[in-house]
Amino acid sequence: MTIPEELLPKQGEPPLLYLASASPRRRELLGLLGVRYIVVVSRFNEASLTHLTDPAEYVVCAAEGKAADVAQKRCGVVLGVDTDVVAPDGSILGKPKDSDDAKRILRLLSGKTHSVFTGVAVVESNAHGEILRKKTSVTQTLVTFAPLPDAAIDSYVATGDPMDKAGAYGLQGRAMAFITRIEGDHTSVIGLPLWTVAEMLSEFGVPLWENTVTTR
Amino acid sequence: MTIPEELLPKQGEPPLLYLASASPRRRELLGLLGVRYIVVVSRFNEASLTHLTDPAEYVVCAAEGKAADVAQKRCGVVLGVDTDVVAPDGSILGKPKDSDDAKRILRLLSGKTHSVFTGVAVVESNAHGEILRKKTSVTQTLVTFAPLPDAAIDSYVATGDPMDKAGAYGLQGRAMAFITRIEGDHTSVIGLPLWTVAEMLSEFGVPLWENTVTTR
Repeated sequence: MTIPEELLPKQGEPPLLYLASASPRRRELLGLLGVRYIVVVSRFNEASLTHLTDPAEYVVCAAEGKAADVAQKRCGVVLGVDTDVVAPDGSILGKPKDSDDAKRILRLLSGKTHSVFTGVAVVESNAHGEILRKKTSVTQTLVTFAPLPDAAIDSYVATGDPMDKAGAYGLQGRAMAFITRIEGDHTSVIGLPLWTVAEMLSEFGVPLWENTVTTR
Repeated sequence: MTIPEELLPKQGEPPLLYLASASPRRRELLGLLGVRYIVVVSRFNEASLTHLTDPAEYVVCAAEGKAADVAQKRCGVVLGVDTDVVAPDGSILGKPKDSDDAKRILRLLSGKTHSVFTGVAVVESNAHGEILRKKTSVTQTLVTFAPLPDAAIDSYVATGDPMDKAGAYGLQGRAMAFITRIEGDHTSVIGLPLWTVAEMLSEFGVPLWENTVTTR
């Protein structure tokens, strides 16, 4: 596949950076690195990964799948990311189906420590959508919840914040109050381990720490 | 001193909660607990504490001093808070004097682990401004910074974010990218260890987790 000319970087310019994620939180976090990037949501089908039972392996393969899918249609550097919340009992927690499911998940996390895994893949492709090189990483962060009274869970679920989030909570909303301890990279819990990403992008020649950042 | 009647809680109502802090970040965090509160900035003079060299002791005494000052002028429950950032070399880091000072402080933190101490005091007073009871706590959180290139420091200082913050960084702005590891309560680093505060306020009869919270 040849990439249309209007999608190619101009001569002498640094590579274009693509974010293969629709998550508004990841967009916001990536902006903190002072990089210019373009959002292209991947069509990678995670159903192809259901045979993977190890969460660290799963998030890396999912991140790589998302990045590779976009890399085949663009010329540049593509960032793929996947985050999984693993309950204290080892089960993988997705997004809640409804309010009752969100309450069930939060009761599962209450008073215990769980893990958040984030896989990151950076993939570089040429003007033919061929993959030139790739690099992956996985970050595990431990999160401890306070023993939550029902009133706390109910009031948080009523805000609607848990509904679009794996594990039924976000680190930046009211659930911030529930977390008594973090061990590891807290940005990974929000969905993008920022310094890890900064170092990987830097290796691929993406300029960081620009002050005026526009996305397109 | 007798508290004017218009400042007293109505018969049968829970105690009024006062936040003895002008910090916008603390106001925002306290709101996450679903409590009603009133901001009254204390006139406590921290110069009276310069003899204290242990940061844990200092932040508790400062928190208590702020809360007690407001408690003598109000009837209810007063929350006082103080946060100190302790550099890897043990020195206490205040707010930066100017941009160059902010850069100096950030270079001090770069590539190393430092401590953030937050002291919390909850003080209850009666209609005569007499202190009935008090409770204090201290939270220590370890924060590890990535080895920062000058471009990262310069671009962060250019945002202006470091200027009103002890240690020249905030956990919620661009400096979020600099932190590779947190050990402990991350809300304490923003300035209010939320779950600790929730438990303390609960002991003093302050209702938590209300859905519609107004401040006045």
